[in-house]
Amino acid sequence: MDGTIDEFALIDRLVGRLRDMDGEDPVLIGIGDDAAVIRHPEGMDLLVTTDTVVENIHFAKSTMDYPDVGYKAIAVSISDIAAMGGRPQSVVLAFTVPTSLPIAALESIYDGIDEVCRRYQCRVVGGNLARCEGPLTITSTVTGVVPHQTAVLRSGAKPGDVIFVTGDVGSSSAGLAFLQGNVPMPGDDAVFLTVRHRRPNPQVFAGEVLREAGATSLNDISDGLASELNEIAKASQVRLRVEADRLPIAPAVRNFARKSGKDSLSFAWYGGEDYQLVGTAPSFAFARALARCQSAGVQLTQIGRVESGDGVVADVDGRLEVLSPGGFNHFRD
Amino acid sequence: MDGTIDEFALIDRLVGRLRDMDGEDPVLIGIGDDAAVIRHPEGMDLLVTTDTVVENIHFAKSTMDYPDVGYKAIAVSISDIAAMGGRPQSVVLAFTVPTSLPIAALESIYDGIDEVCRRYQCRVVGGNLARCEGPLTITSTVTGVVPHQTAVLRSGAKPGDVIFVTGDVGSSSAGLAFLQGNVPMPGDDAVFLTVRHRRPNPQVFAGEVLREAGATSLNDISDGLASELNEIAKASQVRLRVEADRLPIAPAVRNFARKSGKDSLSFAWYGGEDYQLVGTAPSFAFARALARCQSAGVQLTQIGRVESGDGVVADVDGRLEVLSPGGFNHFRD
Repeated sequence: MDGTIDEFALIDRLVGRLRDMDGEDPVLIGIGDDAAVIRHPEGMDLLVTTDTVVENIHFAKSTMDYPDVGYKAIAVSISDIAAMGGRPQSVVLAFTVPTSLPIAALESIYDGIDEVCRRYQCRVVGGNLARCEGPLTITSTVTGVVPHQTAVLRSGAKPGDVIFVTGDVGSSSAGLAFLQGNVPMPGDDAVFLTVRHRRPNPQVFAGEVLREAGATSLNDISDGLASELNEIAKASQVRLRVEADRLPIAPAVRNFARKSGKDSLSFAWYGGEDYQLVGTAPSFAFARALARCQSAGVQLTQIGRVESGDGVVADVDGRLEVLSPGGFNHFRD
Repeated sequence: MDGTIDEFALIDRLVGRLRDMDGEDPVLIGIGDDAAVIRHPEGMDLLVTTDTVVENIHFAKSTMDYPDVGYKAIAVSISDIAAMGGRPQSVVLAFTVPTSLPIAALESIYDGIDEVCRRYQCRVVGGNLARCEGPLTITSTVTGVVPHQTAVLRSGAKPGDVIFVTGDVGSSSAGLAFLQGNVPMPGDDAVFLTVRHRRPNPQVFAGEVLREAGATSLNDISDGLASELNEIAKASQVRLRVEADRLPIAPAVRNFARKSGKDSLSFAWYGGEDYQLVGTAPSFAFARALARCQSAGVQLTQIGRVESGDGVVADVDGRLEVLSPGGFNHFRD
């Protein structure tokens, strides 16, 4: 890093990349004092979540540009707020930065942060930057709000409920495989796969719709659909039964799987980083949410039903298999 | 790190070190779902602050034990809440952990975290642990509350106001010098210096008293008194005039300075990490706060007066000098 600029000047320069927000601003005091001060809306609970991304573990320069790194570092935490049925409000950032990283790279990261924050109306209200030997790491802590006592947990699924996912699944991991490999894809598919890996869209709108409609559980897909389904089954003490042929898998993912000799279902079950929502709702609540999502152009798909029991079972080509977070086992009832 | 334990099991084990809180608990959902859910008290603004400590930059094994590291990593952020006149409520933690660090070290760090959180009634509501090559880093993000529109900023100091500090200054840096050196000190002084460096006491009580009394500015002493005074002078567009012989310097610091051939005032001006509060208040407000602090056994000392002008000047042995964050310059009015 440029030795002629001190940490305070650097932070000023980076914060200068962030543009003002449109609309009403609940932030009374942002960056610059000991702590940020935020007006908290009445009747709402506070949500707090944190996540860290580490270079060469969670992202790599070979598959992500710096603005993507900034965008995604915040998106992963916004997605956790969406998975509670909440709305993001503020973010604080903590960077550890290797001394070799050029300031221009940090500025590019901030451009991506600015983009995701504007898109989700989430203000950067504080941060910290420590230089040290080691990989670039970005920790984002996002606060959000949700009406009192209405946060959607993982533990409310009930037998008879519909199981659903938003958007499509497997696109991010297929995108990563595409970016890491050398299988040529037609332009549209290449763009789709690249964007889905680099710029996930946390489902804040769908999360709020699902909460209002009466969803009984929600989880965001960070580690893979199989893993998230198992978390809901465990927390809710129910069995989730999903049908493989109902999984919403994008045509580009199917095309890429075919060309590269891979299984598109593997991307969907285990891929992770889709930052879609998976959850459960009684049929009437699901129908209500579906109508609102459809009229907003947001994809919402039923993929199964909740049963009494435990674990996750998947109907794959007429065979019932136990779906563990890491793979299939033969099903024994 | 022990390869036989996965990240989820490790986090469960570490979280198991945290004991339940006494008193009313605003945390509706703590660790374990996508985000924590916290009941927000009516009529209060939300405070958010973050800070990162990095091994061998902010702490070293030679001068701090692991419980101290955990304690201090959270204390530095609680101190930022105190410096707004607020009360801490929740903390989320993000660790980057070198693979070589034994799990027992992390458990010890969590014991210190548990101590500081119990002392300040601040709940750990979430966290993240990433293993990577590089130094141990701990990022603490603390939320707090303060009555609406009453947060005490750095920018409200007015000519005529009293300048004050809580506790004593220079003790932490003198403690560090003691721990790094080989100047023998009598038992009581050695304990005092060691504890002041390892276990700072964020001034939450004093911060609330000062806010209620009508303090016009507050800052916590992380980078050193000279630096914090300059921040207030700059943010408030006033001159701060302080008297060196009024600085509250502990006897152990004076003893250590004498024995080690150092200047106790240097520890006080530039040492940093005291996590005391420095600020300003009209005389009547200061008197009110002083009475409440005295009856609670909390030290509060007037060290100067606010004047019109800019910068910080110090009266040292009858000479007026300009006090910059890094040292003295000859004063020219």
